[in-house]
Amino acid sequence: MGWDTYNAYGLDYNETVLKVNSQLLVDLGFRDLGYNVIILDDNMQLRQRDAKGNLQENKKNFPSGLKNISNDFHAAGLKFGVYSSAGRYTCGQVAGGLDHEVADATWWAGLGADYLKYDNCYNEGRSGTPKISYDRYAVMSKALRDTGRNITFSLCNWGDDKPWEWGGDIANSGRISGDIYDSFSRSAPQCPCGPDEYYCQLPGGGCSVMNILGKAANIAWKSQKGYWNDLDMLEVGNGGMTYDEYKTHFSMWAGVKSPLIMGNKLNKLSPQDYAILINPAVLALSQDSDGSAMVRRRRQSVDDKDEYGFGEVQVWQCGLSGGDQAVAFLNGGNNTRTITSDLIEIFGGIPTEDKAAKAWRVYDLWGDATVMSNAEAGRILNGTLLPAQASRYFNRTEMSFEEAIDRNMTSVMGTYVNTVGAFGSISAEVPRHGTALLRLRPVKSQMRKRDEL
Amino acid sequence: MGWDTYNAYGLDYNETVLKVNSQLLVDLGFRDLGYNVIILDDNMQLRQRDAKGNLQENKKNFPSGLKNISNDFHAAGLKFGVYSSAGRYTCGQVAGGLDHEVADATWWAGLGADYLKYDNCYNEGRSGTPKISYDRYAVMSKALRDTGRNITFSLCNWGDDKPWEWGGDIANSGRISGDIYDSFSRSAPQCPCGPDEYYCQLPGGGCSVMNILGKAANIAWKSQKGYWNDLDMLEVGNGGMTYDEYKTHFSMWAGVKSPLIMGNKLNKLSPQDYAILINPAVLALSQDSDGSAMVRRRRQSVDDKDEYGFGEVQVWQCGLSGGDQAVAFLNGGNNTRTITSDLIEIFGGIPTEDKAAKAWRVYDLWGDATVMSNAEAGRILNGTLLPAQASRYFNRTEMSFEEAIDRNMTSVMGTYVNTVGAFGSISAEVPRHGTALLRLRPVKSQMRKRDEL
Amino acid sequence: MGWDTYNAYGLDYNETVLKVNSQLLVDLGFRDLGYNVIILDDNMQLRQRDAKGNLQENKKNFPSGLKNISNDFHAAGLKFGVYSSAGRYTCGQVAGGLDHEVADATWWAGLGADYLKYDNCYNEGRSGTPKISYDRYAVMSKALRDTGRNITFSLCNWGDDKPWEWGGDIANSGRISGDIYDSFSRSAPQCPCGPDEYYCQLPGGGCSVMNILGKAANIAWKSQKGYWNDLDMLEVGNGGMTYDEYKTHFSMWAGVKSPLIMGNKLNKLSPQDYAILINPAVLALSQDSDGSAMVRRRRQSVDDKDEYGFGEVQVWQCGLSGGDQAVAFLNGGNNTRTITSDLIEIFGGIPTEDKAAKAWRVYDLWGDATVMSNAEAGRILNGTLLPAQASRYFNRTEMSFEEAIDRNMTSVMGTYVNTVGAFGSISAEVPRHGTALLRLRPVKSQMRKRDEL
Amino acid sequence: MGWDTYNAYGLDYNETVLKVNSQLLVDLGFRDLGYNVIILDDNMQLRQRDAKGNLQENKKNFPSGLKNISNDFHAAGLKFGVYSSAGRYTCGQVAGGLDHEVADATWWAGLGADYLKYDNCYNEGRSGTPKISYDRYAVMSKALRDTGRNITFSLCNWGDDKPWEWGGDIANSGRISGDIYDSFSRSAPQCPCGPDEYYCQLPGGGCSVMNILGKAANIAWKSQKGYWNDLDMLEVGNGGMTYDEYKTHFSMWAGVKSPLIMGNKLNKLSPQDYAILINPAVLALSQDSDGSAMVRRRRQSVDDKDEYGFGEVQVWQCGLSGGDQAVAFLNGGNNTRTITSDLIEIFGGIPTEDKAAKAWRVYDLWGDATVMSNAEAGRILNGTLLPAQASRYFNRTEMSFEEAIDRNMTSVMGTYVNTVGAFGSISAEVPRHGTALLRLRPVKSQMRKRDEL
Repeated sequence: MGWDTYNAYGLDYNETVLKVNSQLLVDLGFRDLGYNVIILDDNMQLRQRDAKGNLQENKKNFPSGLKNISNDFHAAGLKFGVYSSAGRYTCGQVAGGLDHEVADATWWAGLGADYLKYDNCYNEGRSGTPKISYDRYAVMSKALRDTGRNITFSLCNWGDDKPWEWGGDIANSGRISGDIYDSFSRSAPQCPCGPDEYYCQLPGGGCSVMNILGKAANIAWKSQKGYWNDLDMLEVGNGGMTYDEYKTHFSMWAGVKSPLIMGNKLNKLSPQDYAILINPAVLALSQDSDGSAMVRRRRQSVDDKDEYGFGEVQVWQCGLSGGDQAVAFLNGGNNTRTITSDLIEIFGGIPTEDKAAKAWRVYDLWGDATVMSNAEAGRILNGTLLPAQASRYFNRTEMSFEEAIDRNMTSVMGTYVNTVGAFGSISAEVPRHGTALLRLRPVKSQMRKRDEL
Repeated sequence: MGWDTYNAYGLDYNETVLKVNSQLLVDLGFRDLGYNVIILDDNMQLRQRDAKGNLQENKKNFPSGLKNISNDFHAAGLKFGVYSSAGRYTCGQVAGGLDHEVADATWWAGLGADYLKYDNCYNEGRSGTPKISYDRYAVMSKALRDTGRNITFSLCNWGDDKPWEWGGDIANSGRISGDIYDSFSRSAPQCPCGPDEYYCQLPGGGCSVMNILGKAANIAWKSQKGYWNDLDMLEVGNGGMTYDEYKTHFSMWAGVKSPLIMGNKLNKLSPQDYAILINPAVLALSQDSDGSAMVRRRRQSVDDKDEYGFGEVQVWQCGLSGGDQAVAFLNGGNNTRTITSDLIEIFGGIPTEDKAAKAWRVYDLWGDATVMSNAEAGRILNGTLLPAQASRYFNRTEMSFEEAIDRNMTSVMGTYVNTVGAFGSISAEVPRHGTALLRLRPVKSQMRKRDEL
Repeated sequence: MGWDTYNAYGLDYNETVLKVNSQLLVDLGFRDLGYNVIILDDNMQLRQRDAKGNLQENKKNFPSGLKNISNDFHAAGLKFGVYSSAGRYTCGQVAGGLDHEVADATWWAGLGADYLKYDNCYNEGRSGTPKISYDRYAVMSKALRDTGRNITFSLCNWGDDKPWEWGGDIANSGRISGDIYDSFSRSAPQCPCGPDEYYCQLPGGGCSVMNILGKAANIAWKSQKGYWNDLDMLEVGNGGMTYDEYKTHFSMWAGVKSPLIMGNKLNKLSPQDYAILINPAVLALSQDSDGSAMVRRRRQSVDDKDEYGFGEVQVWQCGLSGGDQAVAFLNGGNNTRTITSDLIEIFGGIPTEDKAAKAWRVYDLWGDATVMSNAEAGRILNGTLLPAQASRYFNRTEMSFEEAIDRNMTSVMGTYVNTVGAFGSISAEVPRHGTALLRLRPVKSQMRKRDEL
Repeated sequence: MGWDTYNAYGLDYNETVLKVNSQLLVDLGFRDLGYNVIILDDNMQLRQRDAKGNLQENKKNFPSGLKNISNDFHAAGLKFGVYSSAGRYTCGQVAGGLDHEVADATWWAGLGADYLKYDNCYNEGRSGTPKISYDRYAVMSKALRDTGRNITFSLCNWGDDKPWEWGGDIANSGRISGDIYDSFSRSAPQCPCGPDEYYCQLPGGGCSVMNILGKAANIAWKSQKGYWNDLDMLEVGNGGMTYDEYKTHFSMWAGVKSPLIMGNKLNKLSPQDYAILINPAVLALSQDSDGSAMVRRRRQSVDDKDEYGFGEVQVWQCGLSGGDQAVAFLNGGNNTRTITSDLIEIFGGIPTEDKAAKAWRVYDLWGDATVMSNAEAGRILNGTLLPAQASRYFNRTEMSFEEAIDRNMTSVMGTYVNTVGAFGSISAEVPRHGTALLRLRPVKSQMRKRDEL
């Protein structure tokens, strides 16, 4: 969890941008929720290396120097993230890391870097099989480890050559698609592969939320502790989607356990968008210690398509630690509808599934119990209320999500809705492009102990 | 033929599991039918190697030590099978064999291993062309041979990079798909390639019986003596399918000459499932010395789809030793139906085919003559009857299938149904998701000797 | 042009087979038409090499020894063709040439070999990119050249890794598909790629004539002098197709300039099939010095499908030396029909094409002028008439096709039908699964000399 | 921008061809518009190298010698372009550059070459992954740089192995498809991949304008300053398309920023075709300093298909320097129609897009203001009028397009049509297979300065 310059600023960011946003990460309570890494995305270094072959800072944009900026972050309890590309240049055409891995890892470690996002542009054609791509990225993985510094390694090769097969050997997360675009379902020629085409010959960019989520559906099960599928950064707050669409975007990224890296301008956040990003019940789902990613249980075409021709209802599910379950009803149709699913479908479509034969208490993660009011959110944003003073703010630094879950606290459990009996059904009214996100808890411990044999 | 821990126990098995099931392999007569290898699947070794780089036993799970367990198996006339992955880790994240092939093969040989199932997880991206995958697996093949011990090598790379093209050079069998799931036709996002997509970019798991069988259809002819397509382990006995579905599963795995490795809990077997697994007529088909795999002769979409949208009728055929033929009528529709096929279709659709111009006696391999009654099966399972005392049990150790076939014994021939004339048709009523499995024998020897020229 | 043991005899041929068929190649006039190479296909050598690593003859099948057989062929004016595989074994599991290229090429040269068919079985996974396959076959190409003997190199890797891209650098011809089957349009699971899928992940075998021809359509233009697309051997004479189907098979193989290698039993030929194979007008088209392969100009689905669901009308065309043109109207529907095409379509669909603006004399290559009567053919086959005495036999050894074409001889021109004017249409009644094969000759030389600029 | 021998002359060109066309490049004013490189395409060198391994001139075709020809070009203010293939031979089977890169680059530099078109034939199978192809072409890139001469490197590997991923590391442009054919929409078997299949296993040749444009749509965004997608040479003037089709061809090649290399006979140009090629407003769009390629915003199937079954309406857009915009309405239907699109669609389909909320002045780039009359064009072509004397000729050597744009000159702005308000629509009547090409200029500077944060 963190914040990255790219989605909102592109190549055009500087020290002021970093100062303003890092301060707001702290002041708005994001840091204490876990959003604690700031990533300086593309355009941090110059195009030319120095005489020794080392990277050079962009002193014009960062007059204080990167080391001082990094120190400031660390002093504020934040982590310092950097960016480069496993190519001759980065996508923004400054110096890339290919064939300079040791020098660059050393340089970053010297700056106190905690995180590397490593892109795929200008890769000199070193792709085409998993082996070729693995070999290219593994060099940097080793260089990072050899610095002795703990640097999170975030693969960004857009799903090329199937990183879900090999990324776990060398990295902490791996992108699965072309770059995200701030749209729910727009199709664009620069993102030519549809939502089913997880194995894509041209990942491109400009990919909508529904496009990327579709690609994630088939490979969600490849995510696990230690290596996460990365669906790209969050667009919440950038204005291209409705409130319900942003809730869907955030709910599903949390459900499939994608890294949650904000890509907005924190000084421009609306109260509604702020309330989305700090919803503790959704964050507790994202950070659940079980680490299981949601699996799609239903994909149903509907007739009420939106302006881009998209129209689907989807049902997703995953297990959570302690036997709880998470369920999402995604209404990708163009009208409000009631979505209903029975426990057999929710748990995978097998009538003999044990979990379908139990009763569950159902909690709504977007209910009143966890969503901050616009009034309170507005006051926090304008500085007249501290997060700690707000009624729906959760300070994860003071209490972990796990502990809150163990205590059955409303702030992470969500709003109780009803109880569903064995083989029963769950229904929810879901607005256009919205998502009902639910937590299910066994009525009592009915999980039979596994037979010894 | 054998038994493996994975389908029923996952990573969660131990010495007790092995003792109970190995004893039942003997007591229930499985061993004497040919099910004589026990495979300790994923989680046999620890994640860490010892100081010399050797594998380490999981002593907590196997307090007697693996060598003693292996000795016990051998003493009982059973073979000792092991598991690892051609990767840094196994799928269950204990130590894998990649780049440790000689050490590991030596270790297994020292344990008295007779069989290795070698998986594909955490392979460091060494895939993408047949050559890359071949090179990775060939190292282990050589290491096994160099131990001097005869160890069956079972490739498990899920059909990645087309093992049917190269597996025969180095191994005894090769998986063709993602892992099986205990369902007849459920589709699942983690098994994204449909039954036609034998060349799959994401083999995944959770694949249904009909999904895997479809993938086998196009590559069935690549199976031959010395190298068999492996459709993954049997789910018979695990509860996810109906009696007819399990009979289809077992019939077709036998027909396409897949290895028959049980993946159940032998102490939980129902009489019906037990009777499936010990049907001598089906096993004689599976173990036929001719080694030809069934070929699909018809694939017909039908309107009565099941709840997962699957609805197909299929006809399969292969030749057997001595001129007999095997034919399967698979009813993948949702209702009982009569399936009819004429000899021209059965033998490949060529009107000039010699075999279509002959008369054949038809035997039903699932008729009364070969299927044990529930009563008898139940008494064997509860220990009040010895297999040798039952009326439909065949002791392959006492008499080979070949000899029984030569003697025209009902126990391996099946139940005589009728005789079909030249260019005639065969019909069978087949229940929903069931299969009529037939043996055809020439009325008299009409096979013309091949022309000298 | 030649004759090969495989289609008719499989692995089961011997010295007698060779003697009978080689004698008939001479006696029936095939040799003098250009069918002058006999290929000993799979199973010529033993599975084991000798102590020095050299191939060993199969002395049981060839008691006189291969060298003597080769000498006999040469004495009879025939060429000696051999077979192996770029793998550990051949498809029939005797010793293959991989990593023994120099030894084997030397051995073959010592036997006097003139032709090598080099297969793709047991290739140790050395495939997956054009480069990997090229490297494997190029070694043998060099080894053959280094023997100093002129040995035609016939690639047989089934279209794997796109030999049409690189075969011309190292070989004389290259197979484009899985093995042919003696059927016009049957589909079979072992040939899973349809007629459009020239880039096939499982070439397989059992491919019908229409399946292979479809694959050829997109790559026909890659054939040129020095490297020909090979559509596999001829099935004419083996009984699986009708007279019209065999004429289509032969016409189209000739039209796309595939090697014409018979795969039949010459002592079992029917008069009709014999008359197909010796039609001089079709052979003159096949052997035309211009070397252009026919291009498909129309592919039209029709409603009268055959029993396998196939139903297409196709129009093909290519230029010939001297300005003549060849046109084929293929009726792949299930009923006789009249096929009509205008010159614009025939010449590529461009209204401004010069050739469409000319008048042409039309000749039928399957008319009375070139097809031998059953009576005469029968007498040749039963030895009561010498080919030289028959009225429709053409002795290419006495006069080349080129000279006959220059002399405007009916035997190679075909039967004059009519004249089509500029932008006019040609029609022909074509039986079910038959082909009208036409030669067009300019009414007078209207080909404008190319502008200097 | 330049002129190449291939489309009009194939392998059959000589010194006279070069002299006539180079003279006309000057006399007809093409050079002064930027068409200043002449490329000697396939067949410049002999098949055999000399004793030292160097290329040899084709002295028969070029009796003055290539060096003298090159000197003449340079003296006339033209650049000298050469051609070869990254293979053993060129497509026309003369000596290719593979494994002779240094020798050949040196030879070309000695001839004064300014441009290399480097093809893909006879590449010895060195393809199959981006890495393999990159490695093959990168050798020549380095060899060219090492000559010390500034030689533009034009990749011509037909889109094989995705040059848009790696071409920018080593070259100035890269072909994306098989060879162009002088037809608007004809489909041909030698160009088997449809307009969507940018990732094509057989690029082939004979590809129509709409086929190639379709392939460009998905990768247009990969073009940028320093590396351009090359849609192949222009067919304008060769007679296979109508006036409207040629205007579409030229408009779209300019819009997607393809190199504009004429492939015609300059002494055969019609007045209409000449007027297309010299339209300064379209050329100013092509050469815009912003370097953004048009993106397709709409692809709409229509019912009025043409004779080849093609029928689509397309809308394309890109930004230009200074805030102007370019828009194309392509009518690929078979009848004249009015095409209408609103600003939201034109700018990417996002309702919140700033550019949609502005007013724009609309200019027609094919209006009277920029298209030379047939009368004037005819007089220039017959030598009775100098380009400088004509009313619609723009001399780019005297004034750059940039300056003319800055001055708001009609000759580069086009004909003013009307003004469209915020969120308004633009309509244009477009003939069959024609294109309305528009420039949009903000009514006044309404582009908000980017927020500091």
